[in-house]
Amino acid sequence: MSIVTLTTDFGYSDSYAGVMKGVMLKINRELQFVDITHGISPQGIQQAAYVIYSAFSHFPEGSTHLLVVDPGVGSKRRPIAFEAGGYFFVGPDNGVFTKIIEKLEPSCIHEITNPDFMEANVSNTFHGRDIFAPATAWIARGGFGLASLGPQISDPVILDLPRQTQSAPNLIEGRIIYVDHFGNAVTNITAGLIAKLQKELGAEGVEIEVPSGVIKGILESYCEAPDGKAICATIGSLDTLEFFVRSGSASATYGLSVNDDVDVRFY
Amino acid sequence: MSIVTLTTDFGYSDSYAGVMKGVMLKINRELQFVDITHGISPQGIQQAAYVIYSAFSHFPEGSTHLLVVDPGVGSKRRPIAFEAGGYFFVGPDNGVFTKIIEKLEPSCIHEITNPDFMEANVSNTFHGRDIFAPATAWIARGGFGLASLGPQISDPVILDLPRQTQSAPNLIEGRIIYVDHFGNAVTNITAGLIAKLQKELGAEGVEIEVPSGVIKGILESYCEAPDGKAICATIGSLDTLEFFVRSGSASATYGLSVNDDVDVRFY
Amino acid sequence: MSIVTLTTDFGYSDSYAGVMKGVMLKINRELQFVDITHGISPQGIQQAAYVIYSAFSHFPEGSTHLLVVDPGVGSKRRPIAFEAGGYFFVGPDNGVFTKIIEKLEPSCIHEITNPDFMEANVSNTFHGRDIFAPATAWIARGGFGLASLGPQISDPVILDLPRQTQSAPNLIEGRIIYVDHFGNAVTNITAGLIAKLQKELGAEGVEIEVPSGVIKGILESYCEAPDGKAICATIGSLDTLEFFVRSGSASATYGLSVNDDVDVRFY
Repeated sequence: MSIVTLTTDFGYSDSYAGVMKGVMLKINRELQFVDITHGISPQGIQQAAYVIYSAFSHFPEGSTHLLVVDPGVGSKRRPIAFEAGGYFFVGPDNGVFTKIIEKLEPSCIHEITNPDFMEANVSNTFHGRDIFAPATAWIARGGFGLASLGPQISDPVILDLPRQTQSAPNLIEGRIIYVDHFGNAVTNITAGLIAKLQKELGAEGVEIEVPSGVIKGILESYCEAPDGKAICATIGSLDTLEFFVRSGSASATYGLSVNDDVDVRFY
Repeated sequence: MSIVTLTTDFGYSDSYAGVMKGVMLKINRELQFVDITHGISPQGIQQAAYVIYSAFSHFPEGSTHLLVVDPGVGSKRRPIAFEAGGYFFVGPDNGVFTKIIEKLEPSCIHEITNPDFMEANVSNTFHGRDIFAPATAWIARGGFGLASLGPQISDPVILDLPRQTQSAPNLIEGRIIYVDHFGNAVTNITAGLIAKLQKELGAEGVEIEVPSGVIKGILESYCEAPDGKAICATIGSLDTLEFFVRSGSASATYGLSVNDDVDVRFY
Repeated sequence: MSIVTLTTDFGYSDSYAGVMKGVMLKINRELQFVDITHGISPQGIQQAAYVIYSAFSHFPEGSTHLLVVDPGVGSKRRPIAFEAGGYFFVGPDNGVFTKIIEKLEPSCIHEITNPDFMEANVSNTFHGRDIFAPATAWIARGGFGLASLGPQISDPVILDLPRQTQSAPNLIEGRIIYVDHFGNAVTNITAGLIAKLQKELGAEGVEIEVPSGVIKGILESYCEAPDGKAICATIGSLDTLEFFVRSGSASATYGLSVNDDVDVRFY
């Protein structure tokens, strides 16, 4: 059984994700599907870029990660596939793989142009079913080089995602990049950079500014938070700074959203 | 591994769908489940009829499609199973298979009455668990004729679903039959009939009337839509006329809903 | 293939549940996952306790049930695993297994302390990924005694869940313990106790009091309900008293919620 993960914005009320699995099983019966999520916001390319980045490496090597968040379906945006870090990736060339490509630096990215790896009739509205699912099933089956899919491309779309910057000796500037189901607000500020500055500066303390206020200190875990609905900071499961409210939603209570500025100041 | 698909209105917060899978695995360990959706609106028989129709043929032949949208559970409505087009279907006889039966014309439909294919104690409130899941698992295991399940019936419930009609040489009348997660509004007007009339008439153009306005032309893909929130028409992934708003919801923006009238006029 | 079920409050928009499956597959490729639900309300320990209790026995013996509803992650709350009734259970020691432990009376419950059964780096915010998923995958693989996981504990957290009581010869007092996706309100009053009293008393009738009114009689099935939006009672799929509105939501229409008092009076 080959592992295929699925990440889409199809939601949970239509047949679209199921149909993609059916199409894949027609080509390859030896597949084990894992849904990462079909709950990406419609056309949420940046959100999908973070979700797949947080998930891909937790799967066995050889897994194929299929992403379909594809507002450009039917346009000239290219369908692509590549191997990197021991995994395969298939999806639209719209920036959804930005974080993966930056981290894993694939040596080759192929445009999928070979009709042998597509459905016989390709619609203009559902390439998930007609191009990405078949390509995924064939790749998971293996036995051919990805060059068979189509020509190599050298200019994949890379989103200009916000980066953390050290803008003063004692200041890290970053952003909220993701808000999860619990209302936890995840930033792009890494535990590594925080620890480095703290050590270099021999800092006594740290305060963190978000649009709605200032948070003092970084807790070890959710459970160190005081009772009540205070907003708190901790290092989350992606090893980055994250805001939460104990038994509540930091996003709802403090109005935090994606792209909010975050300043971390040591003193 | 035999493939079993599931389509229900159970939602995603209870144990009902999981329990059906457990019941099936007790009977047959060699099953691969694919959730088509558990997000059918409660008691949404017509919606389910379209969803399974859009999905069934994309699975390998021999797959068993289990549908449980069953407001009549505990009444005299019959549990049924049949083979058609190389697939097996199991569910309540309440019209949920209308489109499947009309298209595939099964030669035999069986009422499930044989207790050997049911749980030992059949509740009055959860036939999904007690009748449909066990029957599905046995059918997927095979080795017996469906006649063992119970007597043949000749009068399955068929819903009077709206049909497209050509009501003048240059006019097709149809309906919106489905609104998807993206807010795209799918009609029952086929690409085939549109193309036929366009050719016969040598028509210059087409305009489409929906309750909230008139749309000119049918685009090749979502990406040909102008910027902004204009409502547009295209041929969707079911090969039928469909309305959309680029990066938005046609249903929410233009108040389109299931059963709205749609007139396609060639000029 | 070993069966692993998942019950969490992770929702359907993040990668958390998918990541847990990836972690398990890295340890053990021979797993068949069944999602019971990821739709438990955030931190809904009591809800999860009922959901797993309603589901566990419908799976084949030998299945491993993984529960991650874990507001105490990162605190001293213990990760636990145990075998009972032919099944394995893995999750936090926060009461989520209350109903299971009361019913199955496991002879041994083990705290998971052995790092050999964990991820190399255990975060303070996602023990689902770092402790519970790996332990589950190892247990499903088998070949060792659960004592290898860590020391036996004798004082698992048991929630004080509401119980039905017979507070007069003709009166059962209970509570609403669960509201499902359809708005059906499930009580903890068993069909067994109702039948027993009815027989002992030779009762002519029964009336049921809920905060918003009085219901006369217990119907055999949903379909016996009169047309309209009257609230009705029946015996649900857990063999307990349950309230419903035909083609509607008893919870929404009558404002029923978890912990509402329910009195059943025979006359």
